[in-house]
Amino acid sequence: MNSRLDTVDHVAVSVHDVNTALNWYCLDFQCQVLHQDDTWALVEFANIKLALVVTSQHPPHLGFFTPKASQFGQLTAHRDGTRSVYITDPSGNSVELLTTE
Amino acid sequence: MNSRLDTVDHVAVSVHDVNTALNWYCLDFQCQVLHQDDTWALVEFANIKLALVVTSQHPPHLGFFTPKASQFGQLTAHRDGTRSVYITDPSGNSVELLTTE
Repeated sequence: MNSRLDTVDHVAVSVHDVNTALNWYCLDFQCQVLHQDDTWALVEFANIKLALVVTSQHPPHLGFFTPKASQFGQLTAHRDGTRSVYITDPSGNSVELLTTE
Repeated sequence: MNSRLDTVDHVAVSVHDVNTALNWYCLDFQCQVLHQDDTWALVEFANIKLALVVTSQHPPHLGFFTPKASQFGQLTAHRDGTRSVYITDPSGNSVELLTTE
């Protein structure tokens, strides 16, 4: 870990069926399921969390922790204590900016 | 870091123009550019590397280190000493399996 650099909290990829995707990733990799429902799952790896998301409910995206999150728009509070805002990069990829502040 | 779990080495996202994308990510985040050319760039964050790839040259994908990589197909050697194979998950997402063995 290089503490001078920002951290990518999670990467969310689009899947057709959450349960099928979860079974596939957990069969081939050493990982730990943190959350699972019909619309998304959250899987912990050694260095990052992988979200498996049904596109109709959640966009595929990268989630970064940055103290500058509030500069990019109105933050939405989450149950885990974090707050975040979604923006898009110049190529249209969704990016979630998170903060605990 | 949880050493019992596998590591996600990198996440590669599709971009329209590598230089524009690189400037955008490096303006808003504390990160370090490891490689840059016209078809892709590699950016280091505290916990993972982000690849910005032109889709015509490289597919967007997740790259995992796993000792089981060779079980999934013929490995291709890379200049950094790693070897890897690309597969797809059940939803058609590209996944690169890497090993140093």
